[in-house]
Amino acid sequence: MKNFSKTSVVESRRVELHDKLSLTGAEVSINTLEAGTGIPFTHYHKKNEEIYGIIAGKGKVIIDDETVELTSGDWLRIAPSAKRQFFAANDSPISYICIQVKENSLEEYTENDGVMV
Amino acid sequence: MKNFSKTSVVESRRVELHDKLSLTGAEVSINTLEAGTGIPFTHYHKKNEEIYGIIAGKGKVIIDDETVELTSGDWLRIAPSAKRQFFAANDSPISYICIQVKENSLEEYTENDGVMV
Repeated sequence: MKNFSKTSVVESRRVELHDKLSLTGAEVSINTLEAGTGIPFTHYHKKNEEIYGIIAGKGKVIIDDETVELTSGDWLRIAPSAKRQFFAANDSPISYICIQVKENSLEEYTENDGVMV
Repeated sequence: MKNFSKTSVVESRRVELHDKLSLTGAEVSINTLEAGTGIPFTHYHKKNEEIYGIIAGKGKVIIDDETVELTSGDWLRIAPSAKRQFFAANDSPISYICIQVKENSLEEYTENDGVMV
C-alpha cells in the first residue's frame, strides 16, 4: 500500500474518507447539518465505537433518551449499543467529524507504538 | 462501560482524548503548532495507521522525504511505516487532528455495522 494518501474536503452535507484515503482502521466522515435540521433517524452500531468532534456551530445529540448540548470543541465517545440522533440548533448549523472504529481494536499507541528516528 | 462520554477541548498545544473519553478503538489528539515551529522529531509506527485532518491554518508534512503542503480541510492517511514530521508555516500556525488506529482493524462500517431504529 502507498505510504500516504491525501484529499481536500470542501464544505458539504457529508464527505466520507474511507474510500478516498484507502483507510483500513477507521471510517471518518465530515458532516454538516443546516440550522433547524437533524439526522432523520436514530441509530446504533453492532461493533463500532463512534467518536464525534464538533468543529463548528452548535446543536445537540440525543443518546438513549438523554439530551446532550453540543458546541464547537466538544468531543464524545459513544458506545456501539447506544442509540443516537444528532441535530443542529434552530439558530445555527453544526459541523462535526464522526470516526467509526471497531470497539477494543486499539492495542498500543503513541510512545508505545510510535518510534522516533 | 458507560453509553457515552464527553469532553470539551480548549485550544492547547496538544490534547489527547484516549483517557479523557475512555476510547477503546483509537487515540485522537488535537494539536496546534505555532508559526515557524514544527514537531522536533520524525517518527513512524509499529502497528498504527494515522489519519490527520487539518482544522485551521497551514503548514507542511515531510513523509519519507516527500514534502506535502497542508491547509485547512486537508485530510491524510499515513501508513504505519512511513516516516513523518509536521511543521507550521512560517507565517501561520496549524491546528490538526491526529487519529491513531490499528492498521486493518476496521471490519464493517456505516450501513453494514449501523442499525437504524
